[in-house]
Formats: sequence, C-alpha cells, structure tokens
Amino acid sequence: MQIIILAGGSGTRFWPLSRRQRPKQFLSLEGGTSLLQQTCSRLEGLADPEDVWVCTTERLAPAVREQLPQVPAHQVLAEPQGRNTAAAIGWSVSCIPESLREGAVAVLPADHRMADGPAFRQVLDQARQAVEERDLVLTLGIRPHRAETGYGYLELGEVLDQGSGLRRVSRFREKPDLATAESYVSSGNFLWNGGIFVFRGTTLLSLLEHHQPELSSGLKAIAAEPHRLAELYAELPSTSIDYGLMEKIDVIGTLPLDCGWSDLGSWQALWEVAAKDDAGNAFGGPGAETSAALQIAARDNLVWSEGAAVALVGVEGLAVVNTGDAILVMPREQAQEVKAVVERLAAQQREDLL
Amino acid sequence: MQIIILAGGSGTRFWPLSRRQRPKQFLSLEGGTSLLQQTCSRLEGLADPEDVWVCTTERLAPAVREQLPQVPAHQVLAEPQGRNTAAAIGWSVSCIPESLREGAVAVLPADHRMADGPAFRQVLDQARQAVEERDLVLTLGIRPHRAETGYGYLELGEVLDQGSGLRRVSRFREKPDLATAESYVSSGNFLWNGGIFVFRGTTLLSLLEHHQPELSSGLKAIAAEPHRLAELYAELPSTSIDYGLMEKIDVIGTLPLDCGWSDLGSWQALWEVAAKDDAGNAFGGPGAETSAALQIAARDNLVWSEGAAVALVGVEGLAVVNTGDAILVMPREQAQEVKAVVERLAAQQREDLL
Repeated sequence: MQIIILAGGSGTRFWPLSRRQRPKQFLSLEGGTSLLQQTCSRLEGLADPEDVWVCTTERLAPAVREQLPQVPAHQVLAEPQGRNTAAAIGWSVSCIPESLREGAVAVLPADHRMADGPAFRQVLDQARQAVEERDLVLTLGIRPHRAETGYGYLELGEVLDQGSGLRRVSRFREKPDLATAESYVSSGNFLWNGGIFVFRGTTLLSLLEHHQPELSSGLKAIAAEPHRLAELYAELPSTSIDYGLMEKIDVIGTLPLDCGWSDLGSWQALWEVAAKDDAGNAFGGPGAETSAALQIAARDNLVWSEGAAVALVGVEGLAVVNTGDAILVMPREQAQEVKAVVERLAAQQREDLL
Repeated sequence: MQIIILAGGSGTRFWPLSRRQRPKQFLSLEGGTSLLQQTCSRLEGLADPEDVWVCTTERLAPAVREQLPQVPAHQVLAEPQGRNTAAAIGWSVSCIPESLREGAVAVLPADHRMADGPAFRQVLDQARQAVEERDLVLTLGIRPHRAETGYGYLELGEVLDQGSGLRRVSRFREKPDLATAESYVSSGNFLWNGGIFVFRGTTLLSLLEHHQPELSSGLKAIAAEPHRLAELYAELPSTSIDYGLMEKIDVIGTLPLDCGWSDLGSWQALWEVAAKDDAGNAFGGPGAETSAALQIAARDNLVWSEGAAVALVGVEGLAVVNTGDAILVMPREQAQEVKAVVERLAAQQREDLL
C-alpha cells in the first residue's frame, strides 16, 4: 500500500503555538513527537517509509524532510502553491510510479489524532483489502457525537461485508447546515468523513478524468513536462476532494473507524482529548508540571505554556496559551475565534507573530 | 523638614511582578520610574535628598541605594530584621541628628501613588507648619469611597484651622470590621489614615517613651551601642505604629489629602487608577502597545506583560500578568487571592518564582 500524507496545511487555529512556519502538523500538542511524525510512525507494520509520500508546500518541505528523515526526500512533494485537496491528491497519485498506482493508496491528513494505533492499523489494512477486492473509493467513517457543521457526512447504505463492517455510502454530503447535521446525527445512519481515503491509484485518476477533466488534463501536462510544474500547477482548478469528487461519485464505501479519532481542530478539541486533573484542568508544554501545581479554585481550563509557570486563580473554562512572545486567553468554547486575532495580526503586518 | 521613607515592605500582592528581591516599591507599575523613586522625586521643592532617610531591610538596602543615588548612603537605614512600623519609625527618628529632630519629620510609605504631586506637596507643607505651630501628631486623611476594612479610620473632631482644614482626630480606629467600616463611611465623619504621618521627631520619641517604654528603651540602647544593632534590634517589640501608638494617644490631628491617593494594594487597585481603552481594558509593561491592539470582545481587563503580546478574546474582568517566567490569570476582583499562589510556591520551595 502506498501512503499519501497531506501536510500542506497552514491553519491558524492553534495560534500562538501554530505559526506560518510551524503549522499544526509540526506541533507536539500532546508532548513527544509531532502530529506529522505520529502520522508516519503510526503506519509501522503496514507501510514502510519508502512507500510514504508527503504532499506539502515549498515553504514547508524542508521542515517535513527534517521531521521525516526516513521518507525518501524526493517523495516529499512540494506544491508550488496550494490548489486545495483535489489537486494535491491527484498530483500525489500521479507522482507514484505506474506499477504501484495499480494497488491501494491511502490518503492521510498529517494533523489528526488517533488514540488507538493498533485499531487504526487494523481498519486501514481492512480498507486496503476492500479496495483490492472491490473497486471502491473508501473513506473511513467516524461515529458522530455532535452536530458538527464543519465535516462531511456519509449516509450508510448496503452492507458489503459483515465481518469488517464495510458499507456502501449512499450519499456523501459535505458541510451540511446545522438542522441537517442534527437530523443526520439523530438518525444514527450517518458517519463523519474522517478525511482518510483509500482507493486504487488508477481508479482515483480515472474518476478525476471523468469528474474533473480540467484537473486531470493539467496533471497529465505536469507529468509530461515536469520542469513546467510551477507554471502548470498554478493553473490547476482549486477544489476540495470532497466537493470536487466525493459528492459526485457513487462508488464510495466506508469502514467505521473507532480509534479515538480527533482532527484536533481547536484548543477546545485538544482539551477534550487531553488528560485532566480532578478539577478538569489540562496542561501542555514544557511548563506543564509547574503550572499544574499552581491552580487555585480553577476549573476546566486548558493551559499550554512553553516555559512560564501559569497560575490560574478562580477562573473557569479558559484556554491560556503562552509561547514566550505571545499569550492567548479566551474561553475554550470560543476557541474558533482565535482566527480573528490572526487576521488582526496580518492586518498589522506583525510578521513576527504570524 | 526631615523625611523618612518606609521601604522595607515585602508584599506579595503584585506577584508575579513583585518578588522577594523586587517588592512593590521597586516596581514601575505605571511606567517610568519606580514607586520608591516617585516617592522621593515627589518631594522636590519641599525637601532635599540630604533630608531624606529611607528605612528598609538589609536585603533590600543595596537596591534602594541604587534606585536613589541622590540620598546619602548612610541615610539608607537597613533593619537587621523587620520589627513592624513602630520600631522602624522610632529607630529612623532616633537616627536623625538631635538638632534636626526638634523640627518636623514626615513619614511616607514608599509604595503609594499620588496622582497630583503639587496638591500633595501643598498639604505636606501645611502639615509641617501645623506641627511646628501645635505639637500634634498629624496623619494625612483620605476621603473614603468604600467600606475598606484593611485601613485605619480617623474620626474628625474639633476644627483647628479653617484655612488648611486642620482638625483634631477624636478617635483613631485601625482595621474595623465591615459593619463598623460601613457606618463610618456613611456617617461622612471619618477619613482613611493614608499612612503618612508628620510630627516633631522629639515628640514622637516622647510619645514612644510613654506608650511603648520597652521599644523606647531598646532604641536608646541601640543609640548607645550601635555596634550591637543586630542583636538589640531583634529584641525590639514588634507592633505597628497604628496599634502601638496612634490608637493610644489623643494628640492626633489630620489634614485632608485630596491628590488622587492610592495605596495600590492589588492588581485591582492598579486597574482602578489606570488609563483604559474604550472597552475598559488597561495595559502595562513593555508589551502594552502590541497587547492593546489584540483585544477582541474583551472588556474591563488588566493586562500587564513584560514583553509578550497578550491577546484576549471574549473575556471580561480578568487580570492577566506575564513576567516571562510566570503568568497569572485571575478575576481582577479576586486579586487579593494572589497570596494563595505565593503561599503555594513557598510550600513548594520554588525560590525561582518567589
């Protein structure tokens, strides 16, 4: 199985810890190695480093190669510019040698969390078998526990394999509105799209040829004249794999993934999965132990500090993040609003803090 | 007039900014010079540096001499150990040459704020005249605006001088309970003791001889054998000037002091006197300007940061203080609780953060 890790993200939702030069996939949010490194090491026993391809941006490629020295350097693919996930996946697949493209290819986001590695590997291996046996596009499905409007939803259809739980997806619906999301969740017949796709490489390229002909011909042009990558890549249509392909095709299958998945989409999401003290406070970063001992009548807070001891007194439900040059204090549950801070810094051209 | 500045305090209420080696009087809470330096420079035109005596501890004396190079070094008096304000004031007065002790002596806390320097100087000069004319112990009185239980209260008696507003104090009551404080404030007939005393040096020593004979004889022993200071000072009774003398004597007068006084007793008190943006947020420290530009739906907060930019999103009424090695986040109005953090650090023997 060939693996494509999508590592071009430049999200701002973990500011001030995430920066332009250090986006989320490079962070060690729970200590130890980075999310990118974990994504790679999680494959152990399932795919060798020589089977791993990482799609990232030119700016981030050096950091990827540094964090993943075991992956062949030429398999760290540097997009000249971001053209969204359909282009990134299509280009990555077309970079895989033709002989290997016939087999299963898995696409993994670089910045997700899986608490249970063995369970993840088992499902990914079942997915590989499934696409080898049946020519489906598989997306691993997460049991939804809230009416999230930022995800895609998979409507469960025909059971294809009792043992693995493989089912056909009768409908793929990206980012529904709240009422729709609520009805999906309460019906019990939908899974979240976890952003992990498995398919035969050749199948993916055929589907693009049919549903995204402009993208497909652009990728062929790049393959024919790789020295014109920068120029040709810039002309690729920009669309997500979800809107651009998944919503259009009817050969989707899903396997349920129950492995403590989180896309760690915000400080709030990190707090949800983090270990907590008796008062519900969670701590991260090099200053964690000292901070943990300095909580007084403080409940349900997330403290992430690079160095400084953080004393909280009588506060509840806050995210407090310190990186030495910047400090963020906000209610955890408003964590999405951090983007407003980043926008303001951009307007002020504070490159040092972006 | 001779001036005694009491600069031996080791308060913890501005932690993490205040530390054992850098207590409040050395801080520049509102930018510019420190509270100690302001206390000294505020006297300009009223007393020369040669007339200033600073009573502090052995540990803090070098920092005092560094911050106040204009004060003769031998007039920075270093207590071998703290024995409370009655001893500190008595000892300081007895260090003043006998010829000067006959005249007015003013005792000033090193860490109070006076917004209006000229008004302060005018009242202090009136106080000097008053003690030269009448042999009273004067304490400058602050119009109370809340039922504070941590201060002393002066009950106003006979008017002694219409022009300056000099009045006899019929009763001096240190730290009343809340109900009493409320009745005092609503009566309109009480002022707060601002901790600023003016008296003839000789009068103060006579009063101590009468009301604190043990302290008085201890001070005489020190004067006779100054080389035994460490040993003799340790034996002085430890009491405050308020309980030990002011509550016992009936020769107290007061002048009302209306000069934007604050004892800056907490982060809350600093917020109260600070300049604020339209949303009620106040900023201090070297990072103030950057932080001020990063407030989003944040109201009535105090941000004090040594360097790092502090972004607040959707929070209200917090004190957020950063010193690089420590960060404090708490509701402003609970600011007194910061002592609990300091106690915990002491229990953990975190000398680096104390």
